[in-house]
Amino acid sequence: MASAHFNHRKYQPVEPVTGFTRTWPDRQVTAAPMWASVDLRDGNQALLEPMNVAQKQRLWHLLVKLGIKEIEVGFPSASQPDYDFTRWLIEENQIPDDVRIQVLVQAREELIAKTFEALKGVKQAVIHVYNSTSRVQRERVFGMDREQIKSIAVQGATWVRQYAEQYPETEWTFEYSPESFTSTEVEYAVEVCEAVMDVWQPTPEQRCILNLPTTVEVGPPNHFADQVEYFCQHLSRRDCAIISVHTHNDRGGAVASAELALMAGADRVEGTLLGNGERTGNMDIVTLAINLYSQGIDPQLDLSNPDEIIQTCTECTGLPIHPRHPWIGELVYTAFSGSHQDAIRKSLKQQQTDEHWQVAYLPIDPADLGRDYQAVIRVNSQSGKGGMTFLLERDFGISLPRWMQLELAPVVQSTTEQQGGEIDSQTIHDLLIKHFVQDKTPISLNGYRIERSNAAETLSADISIEGENICIEGDGKGAMAAFINAWQSRTGLSIHVVDYAEHAMGEGSDVAAAAYVQLNIDGQRVGGMAVDADTVSASLKAVVSGLNRSGKVAELSKQTQACSA
Amino acid sequence: MASAHFNHRKYQPVEPVTGFTRTWPDRQVTAAPMWASVDLRDGNQALLEPMNVAQKQRLWHLLVKLGIKEIEVGFPSASQPDYDFTRWLIEENQIPDDVRIQVLVQAREELIAKTFEALKGVKQAVIHVYNSTSRVQRERVFGMDREQIKSIAVQGATWVRQYAEQYPETEWTFEYSPESFTSTEVEYAVEVCEAVMDVWQPTPEQRCILNLPTTVEVGPPNHFADQVEYFCQHLSRRDCAIISVHTHNDRGGAVASAELALMAGADRVEGTLLGNGERTGNMDIVTLAINLYSQGIDPQLDLSNPDEIIQTCTECTGLPIHPRHPWIGELVYTAFSGSHQDAIRKSLKQQQTDEHWQVAYLPIDPADLGRDYQAVIRVNSQSGKGGMTFLLERDFGISLPRWMQLELAPVVQSTTEQQGGEIDSQTIHDLLIKHFVQDKTPISLNGYRIERSNAAETLSADISIEGENICIEGDGKGAMAAFINAWQSRTGLSIHVVDYAEHAMGEGSDVAAAAYVQLNIDGQRVGGMAVDADTVSASLKAVVSGLNRSGKVAELSKQTQACSA
Repeated sequence: MASAHFNHRKYQPVEPVTGFTRTWPDRQVTAAPMWASVDLRDGNQALLEPMNVAQKQRLWHLLVKLGIKEIEVGFPSASQPDYDFTRWLIEENQIPDDVRIQVLVQAREELIAKTFEALKGVKQAVIHVYNSTSRVQRERVFGMDREQIKSIAVQGATWVRQYAEQYPETEWTFEYSPESFTSTEVEYAVEVCEAVMDVWQPTPEQRCILNLPTTVEVGPPNHFADQVEYFCQHLSRRDCAIISVHTHNDRGGAVASAELALMAGADRVEGTLLGNGERTGNMDIVTLAINLYSQGIDPQLDLSNPDEIIQTCTECTGLPIHPRHPWIGELVYTAFSGSHQDAIRKSLKQQQTDEHWQVAYLPIDPADLGRDYQAVIRVNSQSGKGGMTFLLERDFGISLPRWMQLELAPVVQSTTEQQGGEIDSQTIHDLLIKHFVQDKTPISLNGYRIERSNAAETLSADISIEGENICIEGDGKGAMAAFINAWQSRTGLSIHVVDYAEHAMGEGSDVAAAAYVQLNIDGQRVGGMAVDADTVSASLKAVVSGLNRSGKVAELSKQTQACSA
Repeated sequence: MASAHFNHRKYQPVEPVTGFTRTWPDRQVTAAPMWASVDLRDGNQALLEPMNVAQKQRLWHLLVKLGIKEIEVGFPSASQPDYDFTRWLIEENQIPDDVRIQVLVQAREELIAKTFEALKGVKQAVIHVYNSTSRVQRERVFGMDREQIKSIAVQGATWVRQYAEQYPETEWTFEYSPESFTSTEVEYAVEVCEAVMDVWQPTPEQRCILNLPTTVEVGPPNHFADQVEYFCQHLSRRDCAIISVHTHNDRGGAVASAELALMAGADRVEGTLLGNGERTGNMDIVTLAINLYSQGIDPQLDLSNPDEIIQTCTECTGLPIHPRHPWIGELVYTAFSGSHQDAIRKSLKQQQTDEHWQVAYLPIDPADLGRDYQAVIRVNSQSGKGGMTFLLERDFGISLPRWMQLELAPVVQSTTEQQGGEIDSQTIHDLLIKHFVQDKTPISLNGYRIERSNAAETLSADISIEGENICIEGDGKGAMAAFINAWQSRTGLSIHVVDYAEHAMGEGSDVAAAAYVQLNIDGQRVGGMAVDADTVSASLKAVVSGLNRSGKVAELSKQTQACSA
């Protein structure tokens, strides 16, 4: 039946791990691991367009803000931008005292020398050296036997130790990865790591890091947990090493592999925010951290504003987040089925603040992450193609972005419940306009002026707040960014654009454009919409709509100074 | 540090499963499970805009084509479109003899009666009845004790049996789900299922299905495997039941949970293509099937053309697939790092056709799925923002879609390797034009005519093939769809548009638009590009470019009939 090229006989199963006592299935994770971010190295390396300096700095600040204490910042001996970024961190004093940076390097002397040069003057750092140890790498890539491959590791470890001695002002931590660990015979991986430890002579007070990567995920997560537990049991100086894992997602199991590895004895997890990284990506730190959080474990990270994480990561990597991404995708707290909605409503009603969370269909309280639970009904679900979105598009040429559909749905639902029965497209349209477009208080936009120079816009806007006219000014890349900047400067609120969409309206209308903006104001999402003959006005008015709807405008300071003409 | 609302103390860990002998970690999966698709029920139910009739029919045909033998087609007692679709399947004779449809129903008599009515005349079918059994559902949603909840299940099973007897012409299979199984005390889940079996009296020859859902994924995959193994060991008539699992992805572990459940004794897996479904989605059948495939197991599904799956699913659900989706995302077979590229090259060179696949960084042969391994270099990687994409955009106003970047990269790479050193933006531009735009043989487009009626376009195009003029005609929703349709009718090739993008070029240029189209022609992807003053011409010429580049044009039949004026 299948095509000739689709042939499972080309492959063979992973070898079961034997010769150890499996205890991990009886364990539970009870504390957060040491988190290490590899966003700026593994993640960046896997992008079609690597991050520029500003993007790297922005992601760095986010990682620090979230509370990650070990951050791999690059491969400075192989990449000049990574070298320069490392120097910027050190020379511009960007590294907090409780954070240590980490850099990757192959086991080659000239690269190790350059790496230490890149780190000169840093207070503390992790030097991460690796070589590949799997059979296919030994035989087909390097043409070497086990002893020869081990000697590469030993030589690399020796150079690392020697160069570290030349920079005694820094507190060094050594990390070694047997790359392609999952395809390496596990007793040989132990042998290589023992040899590296012989060189480094770590102690329980000054441990080295041994990092076990699923460079390629080749088996189910329990198989990796077996490999990790075997490794931990057979390592002679277990108390002198921090066991780290670094999982990839080839089979969709990166998070599960890391979680099971923690039960199997790992202390530390390397991953990235939202799972960016080579091929299918790295383990997603956000997912694993909230997995632990949902089990009552303090993740030791502040993930209370995932929108900021999403915005920063998607803008820095150019990659989207899927609407069903665990914990934080835009569809994760929706319920479409009437019986689900009913169960949630009843459970929420009985939920006491001083007891553990027990709500059907909601594994955690969406409010923890600045989200709302969204009960979504389908208008006229009988037709199968008569939903609210379809009707608005067909009858009014309005294409709501998905998040706007989610915002409008409960408004439509409550009207349906009050009226009973079906609701027509004019009523849906009126509700949309009333709730998102017409509510022009207390802020309204009277006019604006834009000047462009050096690829940045400067915008002055004439605003009324409760009848008083003020002028606000800001700049940024594009009119909307400048407008947001103006509001931030004026109010001190943290305002981010989560999503933005604009489209032309149907022909023959005097309204040219509909604009939709989803803002995050101090950690809370709110949507705004506007229609206008002018596309720029539509986008700015959509921001005003969001500000009005946020309920935070009472905090806005007023100033009765009109824009200078 | 974290915000007040971010508080792990609200949650508690899952209860360990005790009272059974854990054997699953010693097992490996050795054969494909029975696959059951819930795309048309669970998947459809979780969409903002449910599928229309044409979309459901299209997805149905795909599921059958892939080889799925059990397909849950809806909830006919709760939804008129599901009822109508079920009737269409039966009355229009759409169900192959080796496929059985499945329908979901709650344990309520009027719904069960209507469900049997919907299935009247079907040769064989699965009736899937459920009720919720977890503590929070019992106490907070239903206000009932264990006995009362169990009696709902027993009553539902009784009705199902009674109604089935009224339709003896159909071969019935009964399925029961203790909904919210993962949050149900496992001994109670067994007790409820035993009571259901007492009613149904299944035999080893005529088994019932007991389906264990992670309605909400609340723990790590090993915990679910423990629950499943406990269940299998304690069920008194294990040989009379097919044990099925239905996993959701709340913690990112849906695939791993299903895979470990198979080791723990499950026979059958319910899931969806690409993982569509409530909240974070259902288990992705494609990922799990290729996971098994990569272990040398025949998945019993034909997944050799994932582009067709991607196109059908994304168009029917309106949801995207992430570029890093396991096995089939667009970035999955890319390698950016020089050392990875080198290792892949060396391994591929040594790979023999008659031995097992052993290639570093490529867990399977991309050709199995109609893909190519893509070695991506970065032009001028030193600047950190000087990549090929950046240069084309900055200097020529050309914004390549990601898949086009991937197609261009190896062309640029081989030129770099020949020339040595860096490559400038003019050279990159020339390579792009030469390889994607200028190659106008053997097909070229001389002109076209479009007529629009009843929301569909009819298109006639004047084509030259090797100097001979022919006319082709087709129709579809939009000019490009009509053009593709024309080529399909003419050539008999299967041609799909995987992706399409068009953008306006910089000001002052006489070229208004650049169009990019990625086609899948008989299972092989190929990209085309065109620039033109007219946007429609640009898009049609991009298709022609793809056809020319596919190398399949020799197969095109010629016909020397010019278009009628």
